[in-house]
Amino acid sequence: MPDRRTVYFVSDRTGITAEMLGNSLLVQFDAFHFTRHTVPFVDSAEKVEEAIREINATAERERKQPVVFVSIADEAASERIRKGANAVTLDLFQIFIAPLEHALGARSAHAAGRSHGIADAGEYFSRMEAINFAQSHDDGAATRDLAKAQVILVGVSRCGKTPTSLYLALQFGVRAANFPLTPDDFSDRRLPASVTPFRQALFGLTIHPERLREIREARRPGSRYASLEACRQEVREAEHLMELERIPMLDTTSKSIEEIATTILHRTGLRRSVF
Amino acid sequence: MPDRRTVYFVSDRTGITAEMLGNSLLVQFDAFHFTRHTVPFVDSAEKVEEAIREINATAERERKQPVVFVSIADEAASERIRKGANAVTLDLFQIFIAPLEHALGARSAHAAGRSHGIADAGEYFSRMEAINFAQSHDDGAATRDLAKAQVILVGVSRCGKTPTSLYLALQFGVRAANFPLTPDDFSDRRLPASVTPFRQALFGLTIHPERLREIREARRPGSRYASLEACRQEVREAEHLMELERIPMLDTTSKSIEEIATTILHRTGLRRSVF
Repeated sequence: MPDRRTVYFVSDRTGITAEMLGNSLLVQFDAFHFTRHTVPFVDSAEKVEEAIREINATAERERKQPVVFVSIADEAASERIRKGANAVTLDLFQIFIAPLEHALGARSAHAAGRSHGIADAGEYFSRMEAINFAQSHDDGAATRDLAKAQVILVGVSRCGKTPTSLYLALQFGVRAANFPLTPDDFSDRRLPASVTPFRQALFGLTIHPERLREIREARRPGSRYASLEACRQEVREAEHLMELERIPMLDTTSKSIEEIATTILHRTGLRRSVF
Repeated sequence: MPDRRTVYFVSDRTGITAEMLGNSLLVQFDAFHFTRHTVPFVDSAEKVEEAIREINATAERERKQPVVFVSIADEAASERIRKGANAVTLDLFQIFIAPLEHALGARSAHAAGRSHGIADAGEYFSRMEAINFAQSHDDGAATRDLAKAQVILVGVSRCGKTPTSLYLALQFGVRAANFPLTPDDFSDRRLPASVTPFRQALFGLTIHPERLREIREARRPGSRYASLEACRQEVREAEHLMELERIPMLDTTSKSIEEIATTILHRTGLRRSVF
């Protein structure tokens, strides 16, 4: 039986940052089973007290102090939780504000609502445009405006192009198109005609045939498309074509969407703005 | 002239968490202009030294210590950066490990590569399924399998349904469909027939007509669709219909995608798993 512990993420905004950092810490304690609760939008004295009451009820019920990750810009609110909650409180925000103020020689605004809020209109529209772009240029659906793509992912069906394009757009505001490499392209031994003018924007994704088989099998069980033989042949020919055309290539087999997207930005030198 | 400062995000993985937390701190210092560099995948002694060299070259060139956010699980590597870099170093990871070890009465694994890496196969497939689902159930494109939707967003064209559905899938692994409310529905004074069986999953998005006009205008300049009159009428009728049908409603006007998605999960009580 693993040790159990309840964890809270308390934030004055969405709680996404607190969850991400908190999870990267918790995953280091794999003997534990953590039950997670996110309490977002804690931006008033009433909501602070409500959060404290919930945490303290859990502490009493479980006879164990919960772990509480707090990400609140307002100093008094965050202090109130540290003092009022019967918990191990880790303050992700306040702990860095003082050293930053010292380093920059300036006072911080201590204002909530600046992170994961709406950006200025220009940034907002460019992110929306990136999302629309990825959506309308998925799987070779549109060839119009391909010149506007900052990156065009190519690879066999189900190697990870779609989620990566969407993630590049949503998380990094990058205009990403994607284009399948199909058996037709392999018999011609060349790239799809619509993408050849944009060779410098191409980025190849590849995958182990065994893994590809699993993914395709979940989608179309028992099909020729999902057979190991078809997967092996397509992957081999796609890799051959990409090498021939000197397209940079990334193996997605054991990588998360975040890792694939970040690696592409890193290798291509595309500017990333994290939202 | 705002003060300038160069900021590094140094991570053994994607750097996404470091950027998010770092940005939420930096935005508190709005008198500064920050130039940001992300150095991801710093997972070897060589890459640590390379990062230090780059940081120190910047410090010398700018005659100012850069601010360095470090998120590295390996203690020795992170200490090497703290000591070797001519910079203000803020360690997002190590600073919380010791108090967590104390609180849990256990040693951490101090292992890199656990955050934003590939999850277990089950989680991976359910996230992929959510992404495929959002993609194929965008804008009422598919009515098949709507019963599998955890949430179905409804609202007028361009009120934020598509990016929110994609974000719910990508970031939270939630199966979200979305369905437009159109002038046809308003003249019938009822919901589109395909969504009525799933009333309990419906969630309405709305928006100020002036803001909607801006967004539509950017898409189809000068059209009747983008006119303030059309926007006003559609929003009024959509809101009326949603009230009539008692569908929960959220105004997206001044909200980011993250805030809209988080609020929907918060209000509906859907379980969120942050990736």
